[in-house]
Amino acid sequence: MPASKSRLICAQKDHTPYTWSEVECEAYKQGQEAGREWKSIVRQVLVGKQAEETSFHLRYFELEPGGYSSLEKHAHAHVVIAVRGQGRVVLNDKAREMQALDTVYVAPWTPHQFLADGDEPFGFFCIVDAERDRPQPVSPREGRLAQAAGAQSDMPD
Amino acid sequence: MPASKSRLICAQKDHTPYTWSEVECEAYKQGQEAGREWKSIVRQVLVGKQAEETSFHLRYFELEPGGYSSLEKHAHAHVVIAVRGQGRVVLNDKAREMQALDTVYVAPWTPHQFLADGDEPFGFFCIVDAERDRPQPVSPREGRLAQAAGAQSDMPD
Repeated sequence: MPASKSRLICAQKDHTPYTWSEVECEAYKQGQEAGREWKSIVRQVLVGKQAEETSFHLRYFELEPGGYSSLEKHAHAHVVIAVRGQGRVVLNDKAREMQALDTVYVAPWTPHQFLADGDEPFGFFCIVDAERDRPQPVSPREGRLAQAAGAQSDMPD
Repeated sequence: MPASKSRLICAQKDHTPYTWSEVECEAYKQGQEAGREWKSIVRQVLVGKQAEETSFHLRYFELEPGGYSSLEKHAHAHVVIAVRGQGRVVLNDKAREMQALDTVYVAPWTPHQFLADGDEPFGFFCIVDAERDRPQPVSPREGRLAQAAGAQSDMPD
């Protein structure tokens, strides 16, 4: 693929989910996995699929009300910027509320999950290293601590 | 510096400029340079100064009405996400309007400048590789093309 040229990626904010010009709306993941369940979430890759010359990718995730991402952990760090609606992030054994432009740095190996609160979709950008490891399930103990903080999953007892 | 822990960086949107908890508001650059003039712009580094384990940095820039960043170019790519007000980006010899959540990929060596339009400040996130080269002035020809598209600078003829 030839290197990407400079381009403007226009936001369409009268849509649910928010969309961007020429960006495909994808499934969050292929299928469900025990302990890493997710609900009502879609993914869009704004930067990372067109041979851009950055060491990072930029994705947008949007959760319907009641939706949540997988509770998981990995060696790479995340940076997440909330942009639509209200949500929560669970980090280890704590939950923090997030609204537009609140930003979270998720350090390596931190069990984490994003959840939509309220009646509006919860949308956020997630920036990650282009080269990164695959997410992993959390341990039973990490799962119990995260669930006590409000994380959603079907962890075994 | 020890590796950064996970943390929430809370946005304060009743400020001008927008600010974030425990993030310092800095000068955009130290002084002016011929051909790379800038006006009424401040910088905040949300991710990149606390030994975060990412290959990228996240900064926020805010321009007062009439403000603009330096017209410049460099080997590293930029990703910019507009979040406040109205602005324009000049890319080579073209200008494009930007409003909240419009995103621009600036390919390596593209002469570029961001300008605030309207009565409100223009604010945007800029994501860059942690390891990157220093910006350079554009050539006289590049400067003339950018100026014809609306770029602001005092390029020599």
